[in-house]
Amino acid sequence: MRKGQKTRLEIIRKAAPIFNQRGYDGAALSALMKATGLEKGGIYRHFDSKQQLAAEAFDYAWQETLGARIRDLDAIPNALDRLKQFVANFADRRGAIPGGCPLLNTAIDTDDGNFVLRERARNALHEWRNYLISMIVGGIEARDIRPGVGARKLATLIISSLEGALMVCRLERSGDPLRAVQAHLTSYLETEVRRPA
Amino acid sequence: MRKGQKTRLEIIRKAAPIFNQRGYDGAALSALMKATGLEKGGIYRHFDSKQQLAAEAFDYAWQETLGARIRDLDAIPNALDRLKQFVANFADRRGAIPGGCPLLNTAIDTDDGNFVLRERARNALHEWRNYLISMIVGGIEARDIRPGVGARKLATLIISSLEGALMVCRLERSGDPLRAVQAHLTSYLETEVRRPA
Repeated sequence: MRKGQKTRLEIIRKAAPIFNQRGYDGAALSALMKATGLEKGGIYRHFDSKQQLAAEAFDYAWQETLGARIRDLDAIPNALDRLKQFVANFADRRGAIPGGCPLLNTAIDTDDGNFVLRERARNALHEWRNYLISMIVGGIEARDIRPGVGARKLATLIISSLEGALMVCRLERSGDPLRAVQAHLTSYLETEVRRPA
Repeated sequence: MRKGQKTRLEIIRKAAPIFNQRGYDGAALSALMKATGLEKGGIYRHFDSKQQLAAEAFDYAWQETLGARIRDLDAIPNALDRLKQFVANFADRRGAIPGGCPLLNTAIDTDDGNFVLRERARNALHEWRNYLISMIVGGIEARDIRPGVGARKLATLIISSLEGALMVCRLERSGDPLRAVQAHLTSYLETEVRRPA
């Protein structure tokens, strides 16, 4: 990696927690300069605008977050067990990037403007949903999951209830809401989604 | 109502959509001045600080939002039917305040700072959860709801999945995620929560 590329990646890494914790408007240049140890010119030599830096920081934060949530899942042969473990991972693994889920934060932060960043959040949602849909469709083919299950609806249910519970957890500073939602989803997956042997 | 009180309430009403759409940091003085038709001094004669104005605007927005979600519920005698209608109201009724759910927005906006506003969001969550818990506990006493149902867990599940689905709906500009979650919750309430006759 060339030195310029390395510096660029380092700026993205240092900026990601700031955007994730403070939002787009709240991420002040002074905080970005302090975190990176660079002057304004040193940062913006590598990015056209704050919006471009924020978009790259979002993509980085999202890959770290999704990566933590799906790590080790491939080793689980049954698709229904894999879905349950995905839910457990979400509840157990706090993201590598401080400030909560980048998708939730950025979706809320940009939902009345900032189209570039909003598009990144939408892509992240689609990537996550397609990942779950593939798992569910594969599970139907492998006879782990009942044939009548709607893959897109189930993926949407899992994403919605986990993200909403995360919001409540962070507001309450308690893990209980995610535990309650995990228990509900796990029981639902076992009784209504797993294909009986 | 005295003239000063009336002006104060008018400022809160006009400021509420701005804070709800743009967040605390994004709500610029210029936008507040434009919406209220007042100069800075005219606004801050009535409030100690931006934080105080934001807190009052949040409380106003929340009361409007919760009010829309629970309107007409009292006329429904059976508590399980009332819970189902609450879920339907959430899915059907877009808030009176543009910008989505003030609780969701403010929880995300303040979760790494802004303790005054955060406390208001926490109170709003508690008010909402206690409302649902009362409905569920009353339903158990009235034999509309199974005795073993955990009121707090069920309230948390409903709040989490609706709020998460609202986030996805707003990101997608589609009502489908809320419809999917409504269908899931309704079916769950019917089969696992309603007390069989």
